[in-house]
Amino acid sequence: MIYVAIMGHGTVGSGVAEIMINHNPLVAEKVRDKIEVKYILELRDFSSLPYAEKFTDDFEKIVNDPEVKIVAEVMGGIHPAYEFVKRCLEAKKSVVTSNKELVAMKGAELLKIASENSVNFLFEASVGGGIPILRPMAQCLAANDINSVTGILNGTTNYVLNKMIVDDMSFDTALALAQEKGFAEKDPTADIEGHDTCRKICILASLAFGKHVYPEQVKTEGITNVTLEDVAYAQKLGCAIKLIARAKKLPGGHITAEVAPMLVSNSNMLSHVNGVFNAIMVHGDATGDVMFYGKGAGKMPTASAVVADIIDCAKHLHARKYFDWQEGEEGYVVPDTSKKRFFVLIKSLDFEAMSKSFNAVFPDNTWNIKNEFSGEIAFITDEDFEVEISKKLDKIKYESIKTMKMLF
Amino acid sequence: MIYVAIMGHGTVGSGVAEIMINHNPLVAEKVRDKIEVKYILELRDFSSLPYAEKFTDDFEKIVNDPEVKIVAEVMGGIHPAYEFVKRCLEAKKSVVTSNKELVAMKGAELLKIASENSVNFLFEASVGGGIPILRPMAQCLAANDINSVTGILNGTTNYVLNKMIVDDMSFDTALALAQEKGFAEKDPTADIEGHDTCRKICILASLAFGKHVYPEQVKTEGITNVTLEDVAYAQKLGCAIKLIARAKKLPGGHITAEVAPMLVSNSNMLSHVNGVFNAIMVHGDATGDVMFYGKGAGKMPTASAVVADIIDCAKHLHARKYFDWQEGEEGYVVPDTSKKRFFVLIKSLDFEAMSKSFNAVFPDNTWNIKNEFSGEIAFITDEDFEVEISKKLDKIKYESIKTMKMLF
Repeated sequence: MIYVAIMGHGTVGSGVAEIMINHNPLVAEKVRDKIEVKYILELRDFSSLPYAEKFTDDFEKIVNDPEVKIVAEVMGGIHPAYEFVKRCLEAKKSVVTSNKELVAMKGAELLKIASENSVNFLFEASVGGGIPILRPMAQCLAANDINSVTGILNGTTNYVLNKMIVDDMSFDTALALAQEKGFAEKDPTADIEGHDTCRKICILASLAFGKHVYPEQVKTEGITNVTLEDVAYAQKLGCAIKLIARAKKLPGGHITAEVAPMLVSNSNMLSHVNGVFNAIMVHGDATGDVMFYGKGAGKMPTASAVVADIIDCAKHLHARKYFDWQEGEEGYVVPDTSKKRFFVLIKSLDFEAMSKSFNAVFPDNTWNIKNEFSGEIAFITDEDFEVEISKKLDKIKYESIKTMKMLF
Repeated sequence: MIYVAIMGHGTVGSGVAEIMINHNPLVAEKVRDKIEVKYILELRDFSSLPYAEKFTDDFEKIVNDPEVKIVAEVMGGIHPAYEFVKRCLEAKKSVVTSNKELVAMKGAELLKIASENSVNFLFEASVGGGIPILRPMAQCLAANDINSVTGILNGTTNYVLNKMIVDDMSFDTALALAQEKGFAEKDPTADIEGHDTCRKICILASLAFGKHVYPEQVKTEGITNVTLEDVAYAQKLGCAIKLIARAKKLPGGHITAEVAPMLVSNSNMLSHVNGVFNAIMVHGDATGDVMFYGKGAGKMPTASAVVADIIDCAKHLHARKYFDWQEGEEGYVVPDTSKKRFFVLIKSLDFEAMSKSFNAVFPDNTWNIKNEFSGEIAFITDEDFEVEISKKLDKIKYESIKTMKMLF
């Protein structure tokens, strides 16, 4: 018999408990051993549940019970999750978690402690909810050098942007609708400011490139400045605006990583990722582009990923999964200075002067929309260095300007 | 030191040899042990290669060498691949293969032999080339009940259909171009008649639902009857024609499986899978739709998947991967009689009579294109049983008719 403890009984935690208890024969069959939830750590009262006897508010009971071999941490936040996970690993219990904040902040350290104690620390559910991404990246792409990871990693922002595109809704209306539908939290800051996406690209980049990337190393911009106007121009130019997270390997052992709203060309599969769906595009030197797509959040998708990790731990109680990266370092993440295309929206009350100067600076540009009525020109530049584009833009006569990167 | 043998030095085999030999330090680092190719089995002469000393034409040398722990079968075809793989497994060597024909025909038997001998039989490269799909399906979706698997599994046919859609090319011209570009073989029968796709859906269905599905159990239709006209109407109706493979679980322990050209709605991610790319959509009860996308063929993508399996075997020399299904049985695969939408194209010299009868039979249909000039009506039906649709169609006055299933 393998005993499991679940720490937390919120949205994800209750899903994990339901699968582990209600679908126990299915889980046991996959594990090829009996498996049982012994404790659920929670301060709130769940005494009316059929499995109420499993609840405890005492962490010490779990960490000191030698029968418990696997602990699922689904509390969220850094404290006390970090301290609890650390102590469980030190007590030679394998730990699985859906806590992206914890992994993004403390991943390298916790992986090291797991390794020293010959147990596993798995966190498939921390990125992309129910989309299998970390394990395929680590295992199936073992024979590849990964060059870049690009993703739409936050369902809330993707839902909001999609509503703006498809239903012509303003940002505020779309966000309110997302909150009403339960896709966005009451305080949506972590989503719309890009922090959630940032944590996920940190985890992906750490695994892909072997060194921990910390959230503060990643330049992060949310979607609060994206307007209906931007969205409409993007669409007319054959693109969709998405909150994109990117990490790329550079020559010389450095990487770049950033989170920002970008225009994605309709020829790129990522432009078709709509609603609350997430997608991660991994570019390997041998495989080329490989994409993983699915619901990035939600109770059951995320809970099923946590349970899959529990099953994997149970099957490998005496074998370590090689799932590691080193501590990060200052200066490891550098700005992306490669050539790229930019979307530019310029406005002026003197449309004629603006238009004339635009034509002079970008004589060959055919990828543009000139709107004399509103005094705007929206266009997509050729691929060039950002500094070169800036120099050119300085020569145009406009009153306001907005630029966004483009993903081809 | 872990010794490996490669059987076959064709397109995939030479890719495997190159990765294993030229990138040996990278592979060894992932394995965390020294690893070396000891033999390459091949009848052809490769004496000019830098690693010519590894070649042998004697299978007995490989099977009888106790130092060889892992064998990669990349010869293709059933004979002698089947006999060689069987003997290697019986000699307690783990085997990895990219041979979809072998796995589709003999998978259950070879998995059983592997299990009896406590070695691994892995075949990630047999479906989707470099796309990680079998392992994610088996492991990460461990906590899911898989309801259906739907895919675009053949790059050649997808390239041909895509050329017809985008460049208005006839089937024959597009196929000739694919052959010229090396995407289609001289004898393209296995691709365009759907046999290759059929083998891959057999492997996916076997793994997803736990019982072997044999190619002869799967109703298979290729793309040779798809015309430019069909493609154009599909596009106007907001769809793309794709060669779709589907397997679905039914209540009562049966499944359905089929391969056929179908109309895919633009709202479905599969409709955007273009060129030589493949994609597999897996529907799990907890995760919902999860899609895996990438290049489904080609030397390096496929070779990298074979090498990833070699690495996995090397890391688990003493641990069996639970990667199994049972023997299949007659009557396990039954026809799909569920309600669905159909695309219908009817033609008549008497357009007026046809149009009148169409309006009478499908009074509420708004998803249609009437072309009086060419005497055609193309339309998409409401969701209904095939027999019900047939009854209705019988009441329309037309001279010729073509129907295709639709994927929403």
